[in-house]
Amino acid sequence: MMLKRSSHHIFFILLLACIASPGLSRAADPLPSWNEGDTKQAIVSFVTKTTGEGSPDFVPAGQRIATFDNDGTLWAEKPIYFQLLYAIDKVKQMAPQHPEWKQKEPFASIIKGDTKKALEGGEPALMQLIAATHTGMTGEEFQDSVKQWLATARHPETNKPYTEMIYQPMLELLNYLRANGYKTFIVSGGGIDFLRAFAESTYGIPPEQVVGSSLKAKYEERDGKPVIVKLPEVNLIDDKAGKPVGIYQHIGRRPVFAAGNSDGDYEMLQWATAGEGPHFGLLVHHTDGKRAWAYDRKSHVGQLNKALDAAPKAGWTVVDMKDDWKVIFPWGNR
Amino acid sequence: MMLKRSSHHIFFILLLACIASPGLSRAADPLPSWNEGDTKQAIVSFVTKTTGEGSPDFVPAGQRIATFDNDGTLWAEKPIYFQLLYAIDKVKQMAPQHPEWKQKEPFASIIKGDTKKALEGGEPALMQLIAATHTGMTGEEFQDSVKQWLATARHPETNKPYTEMIYQPMLELLNYLRANGYKTFIVSGGGIDFLRAFAESTYGIPPEQVVGSSLKAKYEERDGKPVIVKLPEVNLIDDKAGKPVGIYQHIGRRPVFAAGNSDGDYEMLQWATAGEGPHFGLLVHHTDGKRAWAYDRKSHVGQLNKALDAAPKAGWTVVDMKDDWKVIFPWGNR
Repeated sequence: MMLKRSSHHIFFILLLACIASPGLSRAADPLPSWNEGDTKQAIVSFVTKTTGEGSPDFVPAGQRIATFDNDGTLWAEKPIYFQLLYAIDKVKQMAPQHPEWKQKEPFASIIKGDTKKALEGGEPALMQLIAATHTGMTGEEFQDSVKQWLATARHPETNKPYTEMIYQPMLELLNYLRANGYKTFIVSGGGIDFLRAFAESTYGIPPEQVVGSSLKAKYEERDGKPVIVKLPEVNLIDDKAGKPVGIYQHIGRRPVFAAGNSDGDYEMLQWATAGEGPHFGLLVHHTDGKRAWAYDRKSHVGQLNKALDAAPKAGWTVVDMKDDWKVIFPWGNR
Repeated sequence: MMLKRSSHHIFFILLLACIASPGLSRAADPLPSWNEGDTKQAIVSFVTKTTGEGSPDFVPAGQRIATFDNDGTLWAEKPIYFQLLYAIDKVKQMAPQHPEWKQKEPFASIIKGDTKKALEGGEPALMQLIAATHTGMTGEEFQDSVKQWLATARHPETNKPYTEMIYQPMLELLNYLRANGYKTFIVSGGGIDFLRAFAESTYGIPPEQVVGSSLKAKYEERDGKPVIVKLPEVNLIDDKAGKPVGIYQHIGRRPVFAAGNSDGDYEMLQWATAGEGPHFGLLVHHTDGKRAWAYDRKSHVGQLNKALDAAPKAGWTVVDMKDDWKVIFPWGNR
């Protein structure tokens, strides 16, 4: 009996030692894919000081709004935006029903497989692509089409599904913020309906917490059933100065935490971090050409120039992907 | 010692009896201001069947979206919409800075106290009122102005603050739905910014769960500070066929539960209750001229005609305020 008690004793001492040991306490690290260092420290300090009862920087739970850009911040955006790859695949799929496309740009070049030439038409070409592939159908039909595409399409360089081209450290950051009472939103230049087709299953962000670029829509009956139909008319371009507007319209208050990776996020970060009280601006800097892609000031996709210059003065935390992240994707590195 | 045990015994028997007694179990009634009857029964049955694990009508928590109209559904709308009363008070307050208003309708009539004449100008007059009182300032300035008004203004007939002109049974319904994993939204023809100034403190509905009519906005710097400025241009009229569109844009999925009180809610109820799976449509019918106001088919505010005719066939539950509600307002009856 005494012996048993002793062994119990030893067991508890070992248990306490384990809890106190730096080696094992890492198991409870909410950001295991982030290397120790200033960046991780800044995030953890901010969350701690804004959520600790009695902290002078305490933010009430309802005001803990965190907004995340998507392309280049939560998932990759190379070689080009994935939504554009969806539109291109869709054009190819729809081509047999549109013989007139063989003589009409940007469709003709896309059908020939010359994406570069198709995109030389700039914004008007892009809008034609969007009108052809994103409008006329009901909202539910569009979502189904995107879901079907995401289930089968593969990234041209990694051969992974696009929903696996997401950044593991950012997933952990989303979870960490939510575990601390933050409400996480996507605020993306990408299409709101496109994002809503996967944001919940991929990031745990429900449709009502997705803000994005949008088209106008109308309500009508089709086959005797009330539906929403997507129209070929822009409602909001949720990029640059459109991001604070989108946030204001959808969320109705300034975020406390905002994360992006490009000049398209400059105004969102500027607005979020100009509010009274504590705030946090985060910029993901694509510095890792080996495990992912390295680009910034001169990139056609995800250009980061103005915002990178503004970061030190604005007090934004810049993530150096190469140094700050242990792993890039949930399945490893590129 | 034995005696003590016995008294304990008796205490527990009494306690069990209390728990089992129908009289006391009413204390746990989540809808105490609703009279027993078909309406209350329909609500409770629906919530029970959509939230019970293993129920054939189970709705996963994330999909439990409930949308509520505001004017006439959550708070009163007589003698006229409260937001219009705000605009009128605001015009009077701003008049000294606008001497030109003395010669300009609808302002001249408002300054003279002749609201009826001012509103004879119809929609253009209304838009002029909105432009003068709801635009040009920052979003934050507008919210402050509304909050200040709500803190001091009184209802012309009851002399109560407008935020107390809310329906106690509907407050209970909101709480009951939320306690059962429903996410409650306002979907109102009223202005989204106006609603957001009080929806959280009054109904427990945070700004990001408010959908309403909206104006366009732009992002700019004022006095070196980034702000959102409200523009005199309509973005969305969240009424009639605009309600399903507003829901689609903001929430991104069909509601499972929708409540309104007028023909302005017809399309919202139609869309919500045309979805696959279980759904619930609720219409508040203003039948109580004694404790509140009685109106429906011919009312200028909150006309209920088409939707009332559609209700039986559509399977919508019609609340008879006179018969179904024990009390109207949190402080009693009018």
